[in-house]
Amino acid sequence: MRSHYCGELTAKNISEVVTLCGWVHRRRDHGGVIFLDLRDREGVTQVVFDPDRAESFALADSCRSEFVVQVKGLVRARPEGTVNPNMNTGEIEILGHEIEILNRAATPPFQLDEHQAVGEDIRLKNRFLDLRRPEIQQKLRLRSKVTSILRSYLDDNGFLDIETPILTRATPEGARDYLVPSRTHQGSFFALPQSPQLFKQLLMVSGFDRYYQIAKCFRDEDLRADRQPEFTQIDLETSFLGQEEIMSLTEGMISNLFKEVKDVDLGAFPRMPFSEAMEKYGSDKPDLRIPLTIETVSDLMAEVDFKVFSGPAKDANGRVAALKVPGGNSLTRKQIDEYTKFVGIYGAKGLAYIKVNNKADLEEGLQSPIVKFLPVEVRQALLDRVAAQDGDLIFFGADQTNVVNEALGALRCKLGADLDLYTCEWAPLWVVDFPMFEQTSDGGITAIHHPFTAPSCSPEDLKANPLTALSQAYDMVLNGTELGGGSIRIHQSEMQETVFGLLNISAEEQEEKFGFLLDALKFGAPPHGGLAFGLDRLVMLMTGSASIRDVIAFPKTQSATCLLTQAPGEVSEKQLKELSIRVRKPVTE
Amino acid sequence: MRSHYCGELTAKNISEVVTLCGWVHRRRDHGGVIFLDLRDREGVTQVVFDPDRAESFALADSCRSEFVVQVKGLVRARPEGTVNPNMNTGEIEILGHEIEILNRAATPPFQLDEHQAVGEDIRLKNRFLDLRRPEIQQKLRLRSKVTSILRSYLDDNGFLDIETPILTRATPEGARDYLVPSRTHQGSFFALPQSPQLFKQLLMVSGFDRYYQIAKCFRDEDLRADRQPEFTQIDLETSFLGQEEIMSLTEGMISNLFKEVKDVDLGAFPRMPFSEAMEKYGSDKPDLRIPLTIETVSDLMAEVDFKVFSGPAKDANGRVAALKVPGGNSLTRKQIDEYTKFVGIYGAKGLAYIKVNNKADLEEGLQSPIVKFLPVEVRQALLDRVAAQDGDLIFFGADQTNVVNEALGALRCKLGADLDLYTCEWAPLWVVDFPMFEQTSDGGITAIHHPFTAPSCSPEDLKANPLTALSQAYDMVLNGTELGGGSIRIHQSEMQETVFGLLNISAEEQEEKFGFLLDALKFGAPPHGGLAFGLDRLVMLMTGSASIRDVIAFPKTQSATCLLTQAPGEVSEKQLKELSIRVRKPVTE
Repeated sequence: MRSHYCGELTAKNISEVVTLCGWVHRRRDHGGVIFLDLRDREGVTQVVFDPDRAESFALADSCRSEFVVQVKGLVRARPEGTVNPNMNTGEIEILGHEIEILNRAATPPFQLDEHQAVGEDIRLKNRFLDLRRPEIQQKLRLRSKVTSILRSYLDDNGFLDIETPILTRATPEGARDYLVPSRTHQGSFFALPQSPQLFKQLLMVSGFDRYYQIAKCFRDEDLRADRQPEFTQIDLETSFLGQEEIMSLTEGMISNLFKEVKDVDLGAFPRMPFSEAMEKYGSDKPDLRIPLTIETVSDLMAEVDFKVFSGPAKDANGRVAALKVPGGNSLTRKQIDEYTKFVGIYGAKGLAYIKVNNKADLEEGLQSPIVKFLPVEVRQALLDRVAAQDGDLIFFGADQTNVVNEALGALRCKLGADLDLYTCEWAPLWVVDFPMFEQTSDGGITAIHHPFTAPSCSPEDLKANPLTALSQAYDMVLNGTELGGGSIRIHQSEMQETVFGLLNISAEEQEEKFGFLLDALKFGAPPHGGLAFGLDRLVMLMTGSASIRDVIAFPKTQSATCLLTQAPGEVSEKQLKELSIRVRKPVTE
Repeated sequence: MRSHYCGELTAKNISEVVTLCGWVHRRRDHGGVIFLDLRDREGVTQVVFDPDRAESFALADSCRSEFVVQVKGLVRARPEGTVNPNMNTGEIEILGHEIEILNRAATPPFQLDEHQAVGEDIRLKNRFLDLRRPEIQQKLRLRSKVTSILRSYLDDNGFLDIETPILTRATPEGARDYLVPSRTHQGSFFALPQSPQLFKQLLMVSGFDRYYQIAKCFRDEDLRADRQPEFTQIDLETSFLGQEEIMSLTEGMISNLFKEVKDVDLGAFPRMPFSEAMEKYGSDKPDLRIPLTIETVSDLMAEVDFKVFSGPAKDANGRVAALKVPGGNSLTRKQIDEYTKFVGIYGAKGLAYIKVNNKADLEEGLQSPIVKFLPVEVRQALLDRVAAQDGDLIFFGADQTNVVNEALGALRCKLGADLDLYTCEWAPLWVVDFPMFEQTSDGGITAIHHPFTAPSCSPEDLKANPLTALSQAYDMVLNGTELGGGSIRIHQSEMQETVFGLLNISAEEQEEKFGFLLDALKFGAPPHGGLAFGLDRLVMLMTGSASIRDVIAFPKTQSATCLLTQAPGEVSEKQLKELSIRVRKPVTE
């Protein structure tokens, strides 16, 4: 029906007769001729109809926005002075010979280039129109390109694409499971998978050696800004490879992707132990585009006559830390007040600071409500510790270690954005050497990753010192976002049982929840490990999207509804009966 | 951890020291040395341990089936007389220097090469072992290769891979829908998609031009031999292409696939109208590997003195037809009785036949219980009609047309298989020119494909003659299996409303079920059409698998359960409460 896409015509096509199909992006009536900007997925081309061809002219005149037309005409150079350098096709236009209206369009609820004037709700309800916007088309095309390149890389590296079930086992406490009632087994339920974790481990036990899948996963939870009830993982698992080999293989995958899609060389990814990430960046996913680091100053503050500092400094679970902002003494009182409020979100009770006006003058050169509590030698040691220069500002956190880390970590990222401190566009890294476990508030311990993660030590050492044991887990972080995480898995049932024991999971619960995995480990499981990347997150980063909804064709709202199809919806009593379920009456209190 | 896969070693590697990882496929103790056949996904290699290396020898001696080991050793030629031409690695063996047991294995519930001795239930319950079998590994590897090649072809042809939702709208009468209760909207349900049909049409309305997805689809129904509750479609849709162009593009896709995977040239696919397929093959998915055709003989039988034939011959809805089996007069009475029973499944009340012993002798040369009812000139006309030769057998069907077609169509396929009549390995074709509608038993009409299929005529002609109108639908058939089906879709709302009207779908029901599609058609929908292929079915054909469960890593049984994970399972009262549902008590009658 067409000879070319609209967007691909250039001066090279001049004098050709072409046939185009597309949507009327704009119609203008100017100087007795009709201009139609014709749009398809590759771009826009201007078509001119003059009254010499009366029938075509009348049809073109009757076109309105979003009509679908087929146009035959001659490619010619635009008259001098009308060349549009902002358009790919800006050097040419089509002299329309024939036009056929393939479909008419009612006046759309919003104009594509005025989409920002309407609320997101209107756009989601009319998603089929919103998806016509070139920006969103570009994002979904990039997503398609991303998966294609990732698949090629994995194919080339011997990975097999194997599908795992969507209708799978409901676990007794799967609080975030989506459940699916079974018709054939009344009263029983399937669950949609939160990840293919157990299945991919089974595939390793089966000897497939290298598995991957671009897999839909599901989590029924309150939706934060960038979560969706269904999301997509690039999920992979390998056998007989160590942690370094898996990291190097997947680092190659992401580097290759950025090279091919964005012509960006990410360089070698630095490796950072979890402890260093928390200490210097207050986060297990540090944004290394921002040159600020957090420095511990507990040792300097232990003996000062200022309880706010000396208390946490002397507490084994406390921390006093400084975050130097180069040139930060230009921050106003009002800005500092706002940052104080900001760190309050993370539990910080205040935000002490020192402005370094003249570091040579330890009496008058430091401007701060708290400097009077610090002896002169502490002031000097502090300035030395953070290598302060005149014009800098130093923020402080003093509290339980986790509060200090979270507050200063978040403040660091906010300062980076507010003051545009970024030193580069892309800053990837690996975070490694995670602890196996952390203490829970009730004195128990919980797995930092999942309970199939292998420790770096023997079962005996793990039992002796569970809280200091490290795991063979690794997270890939880019620009402060966790792109993917994985680990070497436990492949021996003794170790798996040790970990379950430390997590206080009873033998009965082990059997009920993971029985088939424990079985599988008994029949010759190879050493194995893998990784899962969040595809939505990756594409958001690559397209600079603020919302996850911009990189998904048919997203759900934050309350997990689809405004286009009105899902979820009501179903008939008959359907519920067939499934042996009934809806509870709402409890009115 | 390894230098090579086990299966890739050949005589070229002789004198190299290699490190292998894998499973002990067999352990033999022979002539004072230990032989381990070591298996990984690429194959098996024989490793020999002799007592010179005492420690390794003892370890190798302690290995049992399915232990996971790492072996270092020297590749050497096998001693003369022990070369195994049936193995890729049969010219060489490894002299084991070192061995490490990476994991032990309990005695497996079945030996891999004795899997046929245990029931499928045992194998499904221990799927992680069953998946170790080389045959099933090959099938899943081929499946991975198939999707990779299909994706490349579609990428190269400008198709964009776009994901559509799994959690979508429950339709009021979706009798086969899997439902998912919503936590946030109590009493409301999502449904899992039976296909992405509406979403892919919306993507065309949005201007994506060419879409594809390898999509999971779900259908909650009684499972026949080769159905699964979740199945995979290669789903595609295009804009501004006609039926011929879509058929040629997808024919290219399948031809390219067979060329790349099986080095088979499928040739140009013949096109056959639905009416011809039903008339000559009694099926809308004829198996053209079988050279038999069904011939109408109603005209010859209208006046014979044999009601079984003359009745249907004179009935406008009846048919008398002949199926000639070359060389079939060697079939025994017992075989013919069995075929008579077989056609009974399809409603045929009997199976008349004539054995052609000597076609020149119309009195004595034809052996048959019914020949006496046929005048000599009818006998001659019949022999001429089917071009009978001495030694042939002619079967007859005489009944309502649909019964004759189904019975003789099925008989034709059974004869093809029983007598091995196949003339080629692969016989693809397109079936086209389907009717739009068919009559239902209650006098209404129903869509043969789905109600979005475009007719070949105008809305006026469609209203005037709905039952003779043809659609722009097309099915790709291979070896008697429908590989895929599709159509040009209705892109104008007037036509869509006409079709809904003929199907007696009320305006209210239209709005409730398809409101968003009807909306979309009003805002500039392009001409579009597409196709969906069944991936499971395609891989079954390509691997010659008898069961769909052989081409799916973790299949469900025929009663839709997973014996490995015990899905579906019970869930806690707490979970049900959170979802605002309860399980109905079983009705005891």
